[in-house]
Amino acid sequence: MRLLKESQPEFVSGEVLCKELGVSRTAVWKHIQALRAEGYDILSQQNAGYRLVGVPDRLYPQEILSGLKTEFIGRHIFYYPQAPSTNILARDLALSGAPDGALVVAEEQTGGRGRLGRGWFSPCGKGVWCSLILYPSVNPAAAPPLTMLTAVAVARAVQQAAGLVPGIKWPNDLLLGGKKICGILTEMSAEIERINYLIIGTGINVNLNGEDFPEEIRDSAASLKMFTGRDVSRIKLLQAYLQEMEQLYRIWLEEGFSPVLELWKEICVTLRRPVRVSSLKESVEGWAEDVDEEGNLILRLENGALRKFVAGEVSLRPF
Amino acid sequence: MRLLKESQPEFVSGEVLCKELGVSRTAVWKHIQALRAEGYDILSQQNAGYRLVGVPDRLYPQEILSGLKTEFIGRHIFYYPQAPSTNILARDLALSGAPDGALVVAEEQTGGRGRLGRGWFSPCGKGVWCSLILYPSVNPAAAPPLTMLTAVAVARAVQQAAGLVPGIKWPNDLLLGGKKICGILTEMSAEIERINYLIIGTGINVNLNGEDFPEEIRDSAASLKMFTGRDVSRIKLLQAYLQEMEQLYRIWLEEGFSPVLELWKEICVTLRRPVRVSSLKESVEGWAEDVDEEGNLILRLENGALRKFVAGEVSLRPF
Repeated sequence: MRLLKESQPEFVSGEVLCKELGVSRTAVWKHIQALRAEGYDILSQQNAGYRLVGVPDRLYPQEILSGLKTEFIGRHIFYYPQAPSTNILARDLALSGAPDGALVVAEEQTGGRGRLGRGWFSPCGKGVWCSLILYPSVNPAAAPPLTMLTAVAVARAVQQAAGLVPGIKWPNDLLLGGKKICGILTEMSAEIERINYLIIGTGINVNLNGEDFPEEIRDSAASLKMFTGRDVSRIKLLQAYLQEMEQLYRIWLEEGFSPVLELWKEICVTLRRPVRVSSLKESVEGWAEDVDEEGNLILRLENGALRKFVAGEVSLRPF
Repeated sequence: MRLLKESQPEFVSGEVLCKELGVSRTAVWKHIQALRAEGYDILSQQNAGYRLVGVPDRLYPQEILSGLKTEFIGRHIFYYPQAPSTNILARDLALSGAPDGALVVAEEQTGGRGRLGRGWFSPCGKGVWCSLILYPSVNPAAAPPLTMLTAVAVARAVQQAAGLVPGIKWPNDLLLGGKKICGILTEMSAEIERINYLIIGTGINVNLNGEDFPEEIRDSAASLKMFTGRDVSRIKLLQAYLQEMEQLYRIWLEEGFSPVLELWKEICVTLRRPVRVSSLKESVEGWAEDVDEEGNLILRLENGALRKFVAGEVSLRPF
């Protein structure tokens, strides 16, 4: 694959492939057949050899790893054409000792999950549905900041890979034109003073068309393609996300949440605005004054008092 | 069993048993044989019937349920003569939908676990090694208070069942004479804004003799028996614990942590004293000023500043 890619758009002779790989002509031919079965378009021509014409729109590990500039995030990849939910698979993999930074990625989720038991629409080949397995040696209170860090990583990746600038809605929803383009579901197994493992699931709507979305979410959800007008490379987006994650995660490990929070605030669109915060129990209106070092939303109520929110659904309201 | 217990120390005739249970004499005899195999000492006498002489020192579900005054805590019991760790079994049971308040109990743990990956010595029949499965609809920040609530429940149960008054060392160690008699290991599976399930594991050292403990913990651990001088009923202790848990859990659900925290403070022996707080990273000395509503320890440092601790190991130091 590497040889074919490097020679593109030229041919690589069968002889060179044999020599470099140290295998027979028949073995080379068998490999080419296997690649074709995976969707690679490879031209073969007598006396010229093989030429790579097209790469399939698939999140194959070799494609993700090719050119990926990270040290541990996404270096181990578990790839599934179809999965019930990458978070569930990631949990099982974490329990069986998957390495730090391992990535679980699926072309399609049949039971994609969002926060609070909601679903996440994850059709085949149209998005980046993936989960990262991390083992930060911190206590569970550090989990909300890590989710916010992830939102920053995705926002920056979207900017790099699609040239779009999304906004963050506290704590970690990514919006374009007021519609949700990415959801993050962080799950953990923890004791009181330490996290055993953390699973960060992200669903990024990449190449769905408006009509692909189920009717009930068509008003609230969107994809990158709906804003770019053309397909966005899922591989490039995923690579950018992994790279941003590693960079931000390192900053967080070394310097704490403050510098990451500053980046988050720059992208946030629900700060210093009148908002409504809804939880399972209540709905409160106020002014989104600030977000503290633990990721809590500080709301100034009508009566001037400050109130801290650990969780909740924020919606903007008119001034 | 109920009929035999109610008639104690008198005999119950085979005829009464047949009638009440609606089965044949042979069936009654088979049941009696089965109970004997479980360790019940039952006398049978021609023309008189059956008499219960002795109940085995086992945490059988029927014994726990007999006289238990709770509505949901401990109403479902998973009993194991031997388990690797009740917390691990409880996790699997929670994942397969065990009901709220379900109890997992074992006579012996072969891989009993304590906090931070430490072990917990759990010899057969000598302690109460158990785990509760709970599904509180709260966010993960509520977990430390629930662990402290559990410490209060165990302390009160020890007082009822053994007449001893233990002290709490922040956040949830129970001490008698400065030695640890109970450990609590809370584990959870959670998202950012909600707990999926919570496992509260408790190990209470009941009837171990001093020499039963492995040498390396003989200085720091003790059992109830070492203070009472005689065996304590594990069944009564466990029942008292379950009842206290349900009562405190209800208060917490209805009124929040404040009233429970007040009870906790009364039993705490590391408040308003000079202490050292050690974590994986550091060791800090100061005055244990207070514990806040989230269960954090507020330490006043030498320089007068206040510092909040989410976790750590507290040791008392001389004034």
